[in-house]
Amino acid sequence: MSQYEQFASDNYSGVCPPAWKAMEAANRMDEAAYGEDSWTQRAADGIRGVFDTDCDVFFVFNGTAANSLALASIGQSFHSVICHELAHIETDECGGPEYASNGAKLLLGQGTDGKLTPQSIEHLVTKRTDIHYPKPKALSLTQATEVGTIYTPEELRAIRATADQYNLNIHMDGARFANAVAALDVHPSEITWKAGVDVLCFSGTKNGLALGEAVVFFNKHLAEDFEWRCKQAGQLASKMRFISAPWCGLLEGDVWLQNARHANACAERLANGLAGLPGITLRYPRQVNGVFVEMPDPVQAALRAKGWRFYNFIGGSARLMCSWATTTERVDQFLSDVRELVA
Amino acid sequence: MSQYEQFASDNYSGVCPPAWKAMEAANRMDEAAYGEDSWTQRAADGIRGVFDTDCDVFFVFNGTAANSLALASIGQSFHSVICHELAHIETDECGGPEYASNGAKLLLGQGTDGKLTPQSIEHLVTKRTDIHYPKPKALSLTQATEVGTIYTPEELRAIRATADQYNLNIHMDGARFANAVAALDVHPSEITWKAGVDVLCFSGTKNGLALGEAVVFFNKHLAEDFEWRCKQAGQLASKMRFISAPWCGLLEGDVWLQNARHANACAERLANGLAGLPGITLRYPRQVNGVFVEMPDPVQAALRAKGWRFYNFIGGSARLMCSWATTTERVDQFLSDVRELVA
Amino acid sequence: MSQYEQFASDNYSGVCPPAWKAMEAANRMDEAAYGEDSWTQRAADGIRGVFDTDCDVFFVFNGTAANSLALASIGQSFHSVICHELAHIETDECGGPEYASNGAKLLLGQGTDGKLTPQSIEHLVTKRTDIHYPKPKALSLTQATEVGTIYTPEELRAIRATADQYNLNIHMDGARFANAVAALDVHPSEITWKAGVDVLCFSGTKNGLALGEAVVFFNKHLAEDFEWRCKQAGQLASKMRFISAPWCGLLEGDVWLQNARHANACAERLANGLAGLPGITLRYPRQVNGVFVEMPDPVQAALRAKGWRFYNFIGGSARLMCSWATTTERVDQFLSDVRELVA
Amino acid sequence: MSQYEQFASDNYSGVCPPAWKAMEAANRMDEAAYGEDSWTQRAADGIRGVFDTDCDVFFVFNGTAANSLALASIGQSFHSVICHELAHIETDECGGPEYASNGAKLLLGQGTDGKLTPQSIEHLVTKRTDIHYPKPKALSLTQATEVGTIYTPEELRAIRATADQYNLNIHMDGARFANAVAALDVHPSEITWKAGVDVLCFSGTKNGLALGEAVVFFNKHLAEDFEWRCKQAGQLASKMRFISAPWCGLLEGDVWLQNARHANACAERLANGLAGLPGITLRYPRQVNGVFVEMPDPVQAALRAKGWRFYNFIGGSARLMCSWATTTERVDQFLSDVRELVA
Repeated sequence: MSQYEQFASDNYSGVCPPAWKAMEAANRMDEAAYGEDSWTQRAADGIRGVFDTDCDVFFVFNGTAANSLALASIGQSFHSVICHELAHIETDECGGPEYASNGAKLLLGQGTDGKLTPQSIEHLVTKRTDIHYPKPKALSLTQATEVGTIYTPEELRAIRATADQYNLNIHMDGARFANAVAALDVHPSEITWKAGVDVLCFSGTKNGLALGEAVVFFNKHLAEDFEWRCKQAGQLASKMRFISAPWCGLLEGDVWLQNARHANACAERLANGLAGLPGITLRYPRQVNGVFVEMPDPVQAALRAKGWRFYNFIGGSARLMCSWATTTERVDQFLSDVRELVA
Repeated sequence: MSQYEQFASDNYSGVCPPAWKAMEAANRMDEAAYGEDSWTQRAADGIRGVFDTDCDVFFVFNGTAANSLALASIGQSFHSVICHELAHIETDECGGPEYASNGAKLLLGQGTDGKLTPQSIEHLVTKRTDIHYPKPKALSLTQATEVGTIYTPEELRAIRATADQYNLNIHMDGARFANAVAALDVHPSEITWKAGVDVLCFSGTKNGLALGEAVVFFNKHLAEDFEWRCKQAGQLASKMRFISAPWCGLLEGDVWLQNARHANACAERLANGLAGLPGITLRYPRQVNGVFVEMPDPVQAALRAKGWRFYNFIGGSARLMCSWATTTERVDQFLSDVRELVA
Repeated sequence: MSQYEQFASDNYSGVCPPAWKAMEAANRMDEAAYGEDSWTQRAADGIRGVFDTDCDVFFVFNGTAANSLALASIGQSFHSVICHELAHIETDECGGPEYASNGAKLLLGQGTDGKLTPQSIEHLVTKRTDIHYPKPKALSLTQATEVGTIYTPEELRAIRATADQYNLNIHMDGARFANAVAALDVHPSEITWKAGVDVLCFSGTKNGLALGEAVVFFNKHLAEDFEWRCKQAGQLASKMRFISAPWCGLLEGDVWLQNARHANACAERLANGLAGLPGITLRYPRQVNGVFVEMPDPVQAALRAKGWRFYNFIGGSARLMCSWATTTERVDQFLSDVRELVA
Repeated sequence: MSQYEQFASDNYSGVCPPAWKAMEAANRMDEAAYGEDSWTQRAADGIRGVFDTDCDVFFVFNGTAANSLALASIGQSFHSVICHELAHIETDECGGPEYASNGAKLLLGQGTDGKLTPQSIEHLVTKRTDIHYPKPKALSLTQATEVGTIYTPEELRAIRATADQYNLNIHMDGARFANAVAALDVHPSEITWKAGVDVLCFSGTKNGLALGEAVVFFNKHLAEDFEWRCKQAGQLASKMRFISAPWCGLLEGDVWLQNARHANACAERLANGLAGLPGITLRYPRQVNGVFVEMPDPVQAALRAKGWRFYNFIGGSARLMCSWATTTERVDQFLSDVRELVA
């Protein structure tokens, strides 16, 4: 593993061994295209097994596509999507949701630690009801959030109660869903369909695949003709088994959970090691696989000079991301370098 | 290789060994995301080498996306795209080009053997010029065509002359571009930028990748901000090296050409073996890796009963596709089965 | 009335006196905007009265918008719309339906005299059901057609039976709906909701308004949130009473029917006068307010030289359109000029 | 003039007499459709005269359409539009710009009194340049602003300097452009093309028409094929003379300026009368035809009970709008009622 890329992003990592093995197996013979192969069926069944319910599952190429198409399946161009002002769909998808929906606006809510509150949702729905304001139809939650925090099952159910009141369908951006499940130590159903989530974008990429996200419709009504939507949007893989087989690798034996637990544990080790060092404070509570930390600029510069890579986030805080491929050796070496620098 | 899938489609095949090896190499360490890795640069340079010119290269997930986004970069929603009535963008992309362009209409031209003629193009441009008719701006050619035929360099230059007359930019759907180059035995530049092609969608998937198409802009003006277009449309891979590294595997040592030559040769062997059998006639000249053949229905049924897979195309003809993974043994076994059945 | 524009188009005519008077009345005082005025309510009620049913009525600016938005309310971007190959939505709206729906394809059917047949519809629905082909969801009929013919109630009910079989919603382009009602001499309900039409675009412009079309949803489920759709698409008039008041002028006292009957009668007089003249033949049966006629080119040129205006249509036939404002004097003078020229 | 609607909105007013007369004149005879009539040419020439430059002029139905289509002509779906957070395109067009552009995001800037500052613009352009952030391409200014304030020529030129630095095209939402010209007492060119505005949406509706906005391209390059854009979007009037003739009525004899001056003067009289009354304060400086005023809730309620109509704006302030049709009698009567209530 290269020293130079460590902690920059969980999407700098590669393919985890079980996913790779499944991909190899899928390459042993020709198979039917467009998802009519044996792996795709098996992967979809695996996801239904994980959630312990009969949901509709579709595989698409990446997270922006998954989120954008899922949201487009909830509303029309003149509807709106409520999300947190820090949501990835707002800040990092270059208008993907607006494009896929042909113009739906995102209405930006607030809440501490990157989490929307029922009050903020209610405010956005009720502040106006005239036709010059796009009618709210979807509510998008990120689990875990962009700042590495998680919604508890109770928080999700409270949000669902508000959503029910205003006829909103809930979309969950699960770019780091596995990390949230691992951290909360709950059954995946508890923070999805049992908490009223209608559609989940369950990321494989950040969890150890080369690429490939699962769009999981617990509300099957929303999935109507979704395969056509994927096809038209350029999100139907012809050799789909190369997405679905690796998913089988992740799902079987709960590799996805182990990968997430490992990444979370590395981040915890990192956060613990940084805690209490002079001049260093956590910007957000460390709950999953990312550590957001305020560090003096010279310390950051010196770390980069030593070859460490990480991004700056809101207000200049450093974002340190761990993945399935992060090693404790590298974590410890990073901590040692920081300790030396702040001494 | 499974017997059961043979001849159904070139996208039933898997990943060819050199592409697989490059993918393995790319998995050895973490690398930067979104194309900032070393492989993507190398693959793009490789494509510039193949075409012997300084073109702009972008990697997207599949062919529908490549075609749709390339066409959207040529015109606006109120413009139109001229293509053959058998073009994939018209018949098999579920409105992908219309979606990516927000409404551009395809104007359908004619021509024998699936090839547009200058006359047909001219007719579509000149028949109306009023504002109730979407203004033609793009011309889309498929090389090789959907019916397995190829445009010669002379034919392409004649079309370019017509395009020049009416200010049309030329898009080439190169789902089987490699097969066309192999069959024509020309330098790739001769049937692209030297023949006035503005943007080529160069397919890796059918040529031996798991997925991944290169959008190659010879007219760099059209590529302006194209990376944003890809991002918004959900076509920017975060772990892009898993698309670009396999491309390196295809490009280096001209594997792409060898794969195409092999597929073409298998199809030639198939066509030659079928020629002259009673009740069997070629529907289109066999020029690349597909054989379109009229066979009596009972023969087709009997072949399927034996486990052969192939699709029916226009007017019920059988489409027999060969790929990099087709074996001459399977071709010969198929021919033997056919001979037995028609005897 | 200007001699020079006669017979070119029914949209060359102006505002009929009753519509003008209502517009004048609406200008007598300030009123609430965006349809919250008294006239809009009255016009919508008037339309409900005409159809003798509780339908949802919206006023938009023109026919392209009415058709495009109505069709977008039926399907998604990846669905398709079945229409006749001569339909205005295909030939004369510059991709408006594709734009408003974000990419829905039109599937082109056939039928003599510009009328779709159940067989042609069935063929388009059943020929493919794979996801590479946009799923048919809407069926669009033009009443009266672009070539001046009309669907009988029986024909419409037969089409509805086919639509039922394949779950298609029926849109009616009623650019000349009034002329069809007048010609068939039926209650408007007989050729709309009683024949299974889901949404009608009822044109006021060609019937004697300055502008303004009514989108009439008999299937109220399709009208959900349609006011937001209009707003977003730039089709919500702020001073809406200047569209709806003239509609009141048309509706009250059945002016719309009288206008249509007058236009039809002028066309009939024209057709009768032309019948049997040497070298002149009707291209389509004259059923409403347009006469499509084959005339020798020199005769056409000579008529134009005399100041007559008319358009050429399919195959060069002359299209002679009558409107509420056409006078029998002008019809007779035209006939006299033709007789002289062909003599 | 109805007492009940006064001060609610300038779009509650009707058609001013000179516009009405021109409309009557246009109804005297048939004319060619789709803008090929004599009035449309004359109105476009009139606008070129007003701005004293050779600009491209198009007439569309309403302001949302004008703004949305003009912005779509500047950028692509993956670009962004910088505007003030109070801009009409953000707050009151139900996602119209996002729809017409197929997904362009609005980036919201700040500035006192509803006016964007160069600093705010620069911040939005420079804060990010990665491809996950839609690239800024257009800058939208509202003149006069939604809160009734105006940009001076100097302010506009300073903004243009910033726009030049970052290659932004400037769109001006001129829903109340006439009021701004009247208030600034400058030649219209001074606050448009001489200050670097690329395209202006010049409103006729609020200035005394039934409907109809002029999209005026000073940067003619942006107007390329704009007539097709209008057609596709359902914004091409068939009987266009009923939009353009009233525009002639407004333009000839500078009626548009007189109307604006009258509305501004009424608002000034209103503001002056309210100034200094106990419990009443202006929320924004009164510069054009709107007065934004903080009034105690019971006073507002009592005024409404007396039949006065007005809307509440940001933070509950009352928005009192005057139009060409407002009378000083009504202004004085309102003031008298307020004085009585606050006494």
